[in-house]
Amino acid sequence: MHKIFKYLEIANAISQKIKDGVFLPGDKLPSIRTVVKEYGVSMNTATQSFMELERRNLVESRPQSGFYVKVQIRRQFDEPGISNPSLKPGFADAADLIDEVYASLNQPGITRFSLGVPDPSFLPVAKLNKCLLEASRKMPDSGTSYEDIQGNKKLRNNIARWSFTWGSQLVADDLVSTSGAMNAIAYCLLATMEKGDTLAVESPVYFGILQLAQSLGIRVLELPTHPGTGIELGALKKVIGKINACLLVSNFNNPLGSCMPESHKMAVVNMLGEQGIPLIENDLYGDIYFGNARPKPCKAFDQGGTVLWCGSVSKTLAPGYRVGWVAPGKYLRKITRLKLHHTVTNTGIIHEAVGNFIGSDNYEKHLRNLRKELYYNNLQISKTVSASFPQGSQLVPPQGGYAMWIALPGKINTADLYHACMRENISIAPGRMFSLQDQFNNCLRLNIGMKWTPELEQKLIRVGHLAQTLL
Amino acid sequence: MHKIFKYLEIANAISQKIKDGVFLPGDKLPSIRTVVKEYGVSMNTATQSFMELERRNLVESRPQSGFYVKVQIRRQFDEPGISNPSLKPGFADAADLIDEVYASLNQPGITRFSLGVPDPSFLPVAKLNKCLLEASRKMPDSGTSYEDIQGNKKLRNNIARWSFTWGSQLVADDLVSTSGAMNAIAYCLLATMEKGDTLAVESPVYFGILQLAQSLGIRVLELPTHPGTGIELGALKKVIGKINACLLVSNFNNPLGSCMPESHKMAVVNMLGEQGIPLIENDLYGDIYFGNARPKPCKAFDQGGTVLWCGSVSKTLAPGYRVGWVAPGKYLRKITRLKLHHTVTNTGIIHEAVGNFIGSDNYEKHLRNLRKELYYNNLQISKTVSASFPQGSQLVPPQGGYAMWIALPGKINTADLYHACMRENISIAPGRMFSLQDQFNNCLRLNIGMKWTPELEQKLIRVGHLAQTLL
Repeated sequence: MHKIFKYLEIANAISQKIKDGVFLPGDKLPSIRTVVKEYGVSMNTATQSFMELERRNLVESRPQSGFYVKVQIRRQFDEPGISNPSLKPGFADAADLIDEVYASLNQPGITRFSLGVPDPSFLPVAKLNKCLLEASRKMPDSGTSYEDIQGNKKLRNNIARWSFTWGSQLVADDLVSTSGAMNAIAYCLLATMEKGDTLAVESPVYFGILQLAQSLGIRVLELPTHPGTGIELGALKKVIGKINACLLVSNFNNPLGSCMPESHKMAVVNMLGEQGIPLIENDLYGDIYFGNARPKPCKAFDQGGTVLWCGSVSKTLAPGYRVGWVAPGKYLRKITRLKLHHTVTNTGIIHEAVGNFIGSDNYEKHLRNLRKELYYNNLQISKTVSASFPQGSQLVPPQGGYAMWIALPGKINTADLYHACMRENISIAPGRMFSLQDQFNNCLRLNIGMKWTPELEQKLIRVGHLAQTLL
Repeated sequence: MHKIFKYLEIANAISQKIKDGVFLPGDKLPSIRTVVKEYGVSMNTATQSFMELERRNLVESRPQSGFYVKVQIRRQFDEPGISNPSLKPGFADAADLIDEVYASLNQPGITRFSLGVPDPSFLPVAKLNKCLLEASRKMPDSGTSYEDIQGNKKLRNNIARWSFTWGSQLVADDLVSTSGAMNAIAYCLLATMEKGDTLAVESPVYFGILQLAQSLGIRVLELPTHPGTGIELGALKKVIGKINACLLVSNFNNPLGSCMPESHKMAVVNMLGEQGIPLIENDLYGDIYFGNARPKPCKAFDQGGTVLWCGSVSKTLAPGYRVGWVAPGKYLRKITRLKLHHTVTNTGIIHEAVGNFIGSDNYEKHLRNLRKELYYNNLQISKTVSASFPQGSQLVPPQGGYAMWIALPGKINTADLYHACMRENISIAPGRMFSLQDQFNNCLRLNIGMKWTPELEQKLIRVGHLAQTLL
């Protein structure tokens, strides 16, 4: 447990009392006022504790009454605590491990729990082919000529329209298209940072970000990150004088799956904005929510143009198409020029095809189905993991996206588990890949994006059993 | 005239005597031995002088006899001399001018002598559409999934095959595909250079290279460059201790059109190779030769793997497709990783479509037609420029590619000419764009890639007349 966060201490104490049966389902909990008095904390901290308990699905608030213990099915596994990285830039990459996991990428016959992509059966391939054909018929010269430097207009227009789902005011001209989200982030880093600068990120964090930053000579500072609510605001505040930019996957991040509450997003945008520190926001999972509505990105709270909002269709339509974008705020001109200098334009015909699809009724239908499939997978995988992984494992139930983060008990090293699994043609992503510090050695990321079948279930059970043997 | 090159002094002296009628067509010239004695130079220098005269098409050698003045049609305009940049990195970019020229890129109704791309009518659009349809039918998941990180195998295979035209031993696994040649060069710079390092280039040089280098904090050292034979070897030798990499368009470079003789290529590869200095070679125009055969790239002489050979189909098939590649020699692993980190993969379906086309019989036929069209354009444009541009203009007759470089006489500033032309909806590329030093203000680059029509001829005549008015 991270010592600096009082609200969690309180939430954990109440949580424990619920688990121990001190408070029973339906019981009313002590009021916020009582907590303030008993623990000697601020109103703010006490409220935060109850929000945390609500988020954990343990309590519910009833208007004008207070908080009650929820009637619920007990989860088998606890959630892991907040990550606890050193607040200094790390340099210990896991390049060999990453290479090893990637080297098997083109090997056939492997069950890839290691990836974070949609199963091809979830993709609207036939409809995309139609959109591509339409593009080749309707574009001047069938898209063989250079397109507008800022990117395909139809694509940018339809992304701007679709962003109404989070109340955005974006128009096509605020957006620059890119070859996928990583390409957008590469331009964002080049636009906002110098070699030797420091970038604050979540911890654990997608290893691709670590490698990209390293390739540009950028130092990475990992922030303590809550499996439910993302980076700890207090930690960010502490290091704010030492960082030059911040990169967050605010919605359903990879590998942790956390989703920042709106209040956190607002606070982060304000905290960074006041210092003029750019926030690169990779919102590529935002449309894949399992809740009731699309969570807003930080960009929704950006007043000063310091949030660079990135996205792509790699997790929703076609990873191989390489279609992404960025709304770079006040860095628009710089990003447009970088794109021009580094790659001239994008592949217009493909970007138009995606523009056609996003502009059609099929897009919303497709997203709805995709969310349903992934949520179903998520439930099946959670259930199977709870039943077959070692007692004492911890699991973060995803709120959206493709990643399920699991911490194994004791001294199990998931690099060893990876090797044991690969001997049976199953691939997992060891936790150590997701940090530049020596941490998460007992963790792994599971891809929930594969079609759930009895065979897949057997493979997952096998991973659990192999983990048992390593205990 | 550049003072350091003795052989040119001699060639110019003899050239002048031919022009003045001192030597007449069919006359035998003094022997190399005589030149050695009279000018007090080495055998090597004297031989080089005659090679230069041969290259200028002024003399021909007859076996066991000597050199003779060629019977020929006198060219209207002379070739400009070797460029004379300072041998220190320049920092005076022409960003405003470039922005201005680019800003008009999407304005309709403009005749764009300013570009360097094939006329859409020269592109095999219908056949490419067929190749794309084939790709969508035959690829697993219609190319919506991530492809191999090194790039589409069919594309790489067919590029490796096609490179037999210059006797290469490359195989598919030596190649990494990219989003066009500029993207390949960006990775080459990131792989071989650090911020603050110095890159040697031709002068004048494509402004995109200057901008890309600037965006990465790389200093650019421009080398004296001969309009026919490319960079001066002596100049490269002089600065070799001060540079970290060299970037050359060895075949039909942009904007000058020079093509390095094989002996120069060999010498450059050896000179740089000995010091372990990487040579980034952008060979994107190599297939568009007006002579008898494809000139070899420097890569053909690379023993140590220090030549990074880049290419693309942007000048031959489809600029908008963004399909390029690099054979990075010993930087293969580094480049592959950079590509992975910066953009994950390329757009597989488009790369497969181009692979289909290059693998078909249509590719060679298409290239043959394209060369014929461009050569025809070249002759028409040369003739029209000679007839309508101010007396005393100098012109580099292209040996291939898309660029014709013209130096106007006196104090004509081609930025002024650009403005005068744009008032009549004609766009040219002012020479100043092609340097980080204050030079080439009287030069311009003409695109020879547009379909030649009576209207285009009138526009070009108009450019000449506007230049006259600025005298």
